[in-house]
Amino acid sequence: MLRDQAQRSSFPLHYPNHPLLCGQYTVVISISIVGGTGYTGGELLRLAAAHPEFEIQCVTSRSDAGKPVTDTWPQLQGHLDVRFSAPDPDRLADSELVFFATPNGTAMEMVPELLSRGVKVVDLSADFRLKSHLQWQQWYGREHACPEYLEEAVYGLPELSRDAIRTARLVANPGCYPTAVILGVLPLLTRGIIDGQDIIADAKSGVSGAGRGASVANLFGEVSENFKAYGAQGHRHHPEIVQALNGVVQGTIGFTFVPHLLPMFRGMQATIYGRVVDREPDIESVLSDYYAEHPFVTIEASGSHPQTRNVLGTNRCRIAVHSALEGARVVILSVIDNLTKGAAGQAVQNANLMCGLEEDLGLNAIALRP
Amino acid sequence: MLRDQAQRSSFPLHYPNHPLLCGQYTVVISISIVGGTGYTGGELLRLAAAHPEFEIQCVTSRSDAGKPVTDTWPQLQGHLDVRFSAPDPDRLADSELVFFATPNGTAMEMVPELLSRGVKVVDLSADFRLKSHLQWQQWYGREHACPEYLEEAVYGLPELSRDAIRTARLVANPGCYPTAVILGVLPLLTRGIIDGQDIIADAKSGVSGAGRGASVANLFGEVSENFKAYGAQGHRHHPEIVQALNGVVQGTIGFTFVPHLLPMFRGMQATIYGRVVDREPDIESVLSDYYAEHPFVTIEASGSHPQTRNVLGTNRCRIAVHSALEGARVVILSVIDNLTKGAAGQAVQNANLMCGLEEDLGLNAIALRP
Amino acid sequence: MLRDQAQRSSFPLHYPNHPLLCGQYTVVISISIVGGTGYTGGELLRLAAAHPEFEIQCVTSRSDAGKPVTDTWPQLQGHLDVRFSAPDPDRLADSELVFFATPNGTAMEMVPELLSRGVKVVDLSADFRLKSHLQWQQWYGREHACPEYLEEAVYGLPELSRDAIRTARLVANPGCYPTAVILGVLPLLTRGIIDGQDIIADAKSGVSGAGRGASVANLFGEVSENFKAYGAQGHRHHPEIVQALNGVVQGTIGFTFVPHLLPMFRGMQATIYGRVVDREPDIESVLSDYYAEHPFVTIEASGSHPQTRNVLGTNRCRIAVHSALEGARVVILSVIDNLTKGAAGQAVQNANLMCGLEEDLGLNAIALRP
Amino acid sequence: MLRDQAQRSSFPLHYPNHPLLCGQYTVVISISIVGGTGYTGGELLRLAAAHPEFEIQCVTSRSDAGKPVTDTWPQLQGHLDVRFSAPDPDRLADSELVFFATPNGTAMEMVPELLSRGVKVVDLSADFRLKSHLQWQQWYGREHACPEYLEEAVYGLPELSRDAIRTARLVANPGCYPTAVILGVLPLLTRGIIDGQDIIADAKSGVSGAGRGASVANLFGEVSENFKAYGAQGHRHHPEIVQALNGVVQGTIGFTFVPHLLPMFRGMQATIYGRVVDREPDIESVLSDYYAEHPFVTIEASGSHPQTRNVLGTNRCRIAVHSALEGARVVILSVIDNLTKGAAGQAVQNANLMCGLEEDLGLNAIALRP
Repeated sequence: MLRDQAQRSSFPLHYPNHPLLCGQYTVVISISIVGGTGYTGGELLRLAAAHPEFEIQCVTSRSDAGKPVTDTWPQLQGHLDVRFSAPDPDRLADSELVFFATPNGTAMEMVPELLSRGVKVVDLSADFRLKSHLQWQQWYGREHACPEYLEEAVYGLPELSRDAIRTARLVANPGCYPTAVILGVLPLLTRGIIDGQDIIADAKSGVSGAGRGASVANLFGEVSENFKAYGAQGHRHHPEIVQALNGVVQGTIGFTFVPHLLPMFRGMQATIYGRVVDREPDIESVLSDYYAEHPFVTIEASGSHPQTRNVLGTNRCRIAVHSALEGARVVILSVIDNLTKGAAGQAVQNANLMCGLEEDLGLNAIALRP
Repeated sequence: MLRDQAQRSSFPLHYPNHPLLCGQYTVVISISIVGGTGYTGGELLRLAAAHPEFEIQCVTSRSDAGKPVTDTWPQLQGHLDVRFSAPDPDRLADSELVFFATPNGTAMEMVPELLSRGVKVVDLSADFRLKSHLQWQQWYGREHACPEYLEEAVYGLPELSRDAIRTARLVANPGCYPTAVILGVLPLLTRGIIDGQDIIADAKSGVSGAGRGASVANLFGEVSENFKAYGAQGHRHHPEIVQALNGVVQGTIGFTFVPHLLPMFRGMQATIYGRVVDREPDIESVLSDYYAEHPFVTIEASGSHPQTRNVLGTNRCRIAVHSALEGARVVILSVIDNLTKGAAGQAVQNANLMCGLEEDLGLNAIALRP
Repeated sequence: MLRDQAQRSSFPLHYPNHPLLCGQYTVVISISIVGGTGYTGGELLRLAAAHPEFEIQCVTSRSDAGKPVTDTWPQLQGHLDVRFSAPDPDRLADSELVFFATPNGTAMEMVPELLSRGVKVVDLSADFRLKSHLQWQQWYGREHACPEYLEEAVYGLPELSRDAIRTARLVANPGCYPTAVILGVLPLLTRGIIDGQDIIADAKSGVSGAGRGASVANLFGEVSENFKAYGAQGHRHHPEIVQALNGVVQGTIGFTFVPHLLPMFRGMQATIYGRVVDREPDIESVLSDYYAEHPFVTIEASGSHPQTRNVLGTNRCRIAVHSALEGARVVILSVIDNLTKGAAGQAVQNANLMCGLEEDLGLNAIALRP
Repeated sequence: MLRDQAQRSSFPLHYPNHPLLCGQYTVVISISIVGGTGYTGGELLRLAAAHPEFEIQCVTSRSDAGKPVTDTWPQLQGHLDVRFSAPDPDRLADSELVFFATPNGTAMEMVPELLSRGVKVVDLSADFRLKSHLQWQQWYGREHACPEYLEEAVYGLPELSRDAIRTARLVANPGCYPTAVILGVLPLLTRGIIDGQDIIADAKSGVSGAGRGASVANLFGEVSENFKAYGAQGHRHHPEIVQALNGVVQGTIGFTFVPHLLPMFRGMQATIYGRVVDREPDIESVLSDYYAEHPFVTIEASGSHPQTRNVLGTNRCRIAVHSALEGARVVILSVIDNLTKGAAGQAVQNANLMCGLEEDLGLNAIALRP
């Protein structure tokens, strides 16, 4: 181990009153997870069960209520001794923070009550990601149950709005594609280096992003040894990215987005094509400077190609930039693990910030290759 | 079977003097393959061994000379009874047509002699793909051995130059990426529908394109459950695509190209982003019309997403077009099997044309999913 | 091509009155497929659409009735122009032979009527594999709908009972595991070389054997990068194997069977452990002699290890034998493609025999690696 | 987290003089790794870099000496700041313990000197696994460089000989197959429940066991979508297993062993077939009792099937037992991650014991699925 890293994140020395050291009072955070049987819920359980300051109180599942969580996730044996329960606002309200790892449409039904009872919420679904309830209705095909909370919800990309997250009571955890794309272009748009009117993101995701529901399309026999685009007519993450980038440029960006399905489980890359309008600055330095104080973004040396396996199971985003052979194009390669930085890891990062913990607490495991 | 299809391509009825029917004289074509131990060579053997009009005379391999081809390719047992031999121009000159499935730099040493002895050549390597020997030298890092043949060599994309191929004695079989990209944009550039100054191709390939040489980078442990871009600084297929498209627009195109490696064996997709400058024509119709007389290109219905598994092991290219959500971008999705339409299948298609056979002879097997 | 092979199986020269040659009368066989949307049905369609003597009349699917078959199987475009229809005995009765590629329990409801109307049947499901209706009821959990046909049904393993298949009107196509296991031990049991009381088969299958139904267990995320046994308490293929081997030894065998799930789509291996009781004969020769007249079984040279990719998409079984390091054990390695020789290919082989065609007609494609 | 588990293994409370708590003196163990560029070395680096009591001093590589370890293993960035060095006994002798993750034949050249200088050694290669130097010579094809150390070396399977490991200075870390097989049969042989004369192990391994050397056989294109047995004539792990089991029964066992290659990277299963000679005891209880005090073996409930993904990246072995349908056979299913419990994890477990640390220190991460 690197001693300084261990001191910073694995040991509780920065909590002078930590109970294990002094027996006085506890900073352990009581958390619950609504929706614990999907891949995102499973990843969140993996991270939360190993988190040094989280105590898991409830894990809900309507279908599996009463069964041990380890029936679904045997790898948690010895790490978590909890049974699934039906979602019950009274029990959830006993937690300091509740994560929603539910299908779209569930969180918005329960969040207002939890907030009113003083519970913090990180919603991993899409319920609070868009500011406009009309746009939400258009993309998600139903009325929003509590549009009055859309404005309050903080878009939980810490590299974009860490301070707001620290004081938020409701955080909308970003989608996986938006995380990979926004982290790639954010510094260049902020500094006006690329043209906001002409951004193309060609994104590729492992199949875990499609969830754990039984479907023919996600069978091994349909996904393995196969590649395809999908949602080229319009993907729900498109308005989410546009909204975030519009905020960055204080205007309206022009954005083309095509997602693709990879024959693998975890991992995502966005290949982003931008048009350089200010050739002055060194792009790699702009990126490095921007992320200097952000623990989870690594800018690779010029000319390198990030690989998804190097972020497998971690909360890290690795980025490299290339100048296109001809003309003014810059190519940005941004990789994440869609289940971790693209979902559950970022949710823990947000929860750490909301609870006054170190941003990277419980998020420093080394990637397991491949 | 569809009777009309069977009549057209499986049965020799269109050769009125076919020996099996009349016992008079034979149209069987004697062919040889230089380089039979790589993945491209293996695929070429699979197609050639089942081809109703090819008789395989020599299959060369310096390292395996003397051993049965079926030691390397057991699946050919019962289909091919030949031993590898060392490459010998005298023996090769007995063939009507010679395929080179060799690393770059081999064919150019042998082709002049074979041509001078009246042998037709289809070179699957890159030796004759570029017209400028200076450009070839720049990209392939050595002097070209016979630059005087570069002008004569016909670029073997039948959908671009079928007539020239029919009468060629030397065909440069296109690279896999160029095949997928050029087929995608060719009709739109020809008709002036997209801007030739602003074409982006984000391409993804199965690992078979990297060949069968022993290398750490292509181990299962490095490729599986992983995704990355490569060659973003400049890939050898870039000048090849530019040269072909420059020819289409009678000018100089602006082209950005980034290849990626998929965790699968066979299959390739190019996702191409173009800027529409003429909104008049229906893009799907333009594509369908262009390829109406070409048996191996299928234009999928608007809004669909081609999948590589639907072309697995076939010589087919499937294309679909999408309008981007915002602005004037059109997105073209083009999939092929990189070993077949991207290499060995296209080589057989070229050989069929050069030998006066039906273009699709021996190339009508149904894709094996997945 | 090898000319003799082509003459034997691709060209219709052995049918002196073939219509394409003489225009007089046709030997084309009208066939139908009940259940065309699963993986077995898809493989059967691939083989039947390319079969030189089959004309596909009906392909049934209750759920997709009315839709083109190529909506489900785009790779058949250009090869098959038929729509799914609801199963209708009157329409099916117009076919000379009907394949059932349905879940267990469907064929037994329709077979008696089809037989009574003179239609031949190859049932790829398990409905007619067991002779005892009590045993069938025990393993399949319901009453058999037409137990009076169990005795008549011929177990369709041509290497075991080719002559009976030739004259059968109802063939029960074997399960995939039984095919791999029985082919491995059949010659040794027949010759009394191994002890029938002590046979162990450790079998491994690609996931296509589990079918194309939507299920969490067969998602890419559950199958990839994972390995497990299943059904170790008792698998439905156990009584099927025992019944067949009891017939071989004219007694009762002792058999242990454990199936496993491989993280791949197509391919199966049975590793069979037998106890040698007669050391006299050369085991490899026994196997080679037994299968000398059977076109689809290849005995590999002593000491080799068959690979599933070498039979991918083919109707072939490859077998090798090893002597265990200690004691009297012999190890038999038997590989097939579970969808082809283990299901649809064997069904076509049976149909060829039942219809008086060459046994290997339409079954001679070369394996597509990998 | 489970508080008791955290207290036991993540926090240093059981070291009353731990420097982080008291600043007095340090228990941090200085370790080195000889051979850090293979898959086993990479896994060892992952575990060692995160181990709370290990400080990594040297990581050797002849080929990459001078380069940062993170050039080869980018996922260690931020966790390890060391450069590869050439192996130098003087530098290695500064470590308290040295791991060898080298090809067979390297450790035996260096171990005597290191031992003589008071360094403890865990050898992950096969150099010290066999007691007989004649047998070693026979299986590894050369003379042993220091046969006089074979007797002293302790076979490092803690579940077999934990006490001897605690006091050993040289531990021979077991092979992956031996670990999975021996853990499966050890309790039943010890208690005399199965016949030692008739044990069959059918084992399947992910390809990482074959190492990271450049070889055609381990290319993605050769391994993916493929399955085969190998080494059926005799695998080097055979004598290792026999030696260990002979020790258990105080006699000579009869053992048949066939390894197979899985199309996946990490994970191994041994399916073991034993003949029950004492039906009295409940087999599952025998196993549970045997492993009650061993933290890394989990006995699954009767009738279940362990999955390799549930041990992915962990030091755990999961075992389930089944009674065969007929006769007296018991089937034991034993799964491990071949790189962790089968190699690097077990090496850390051994080092923990040798250094007086908690056996499971640094080995409690939760499996990353899949």
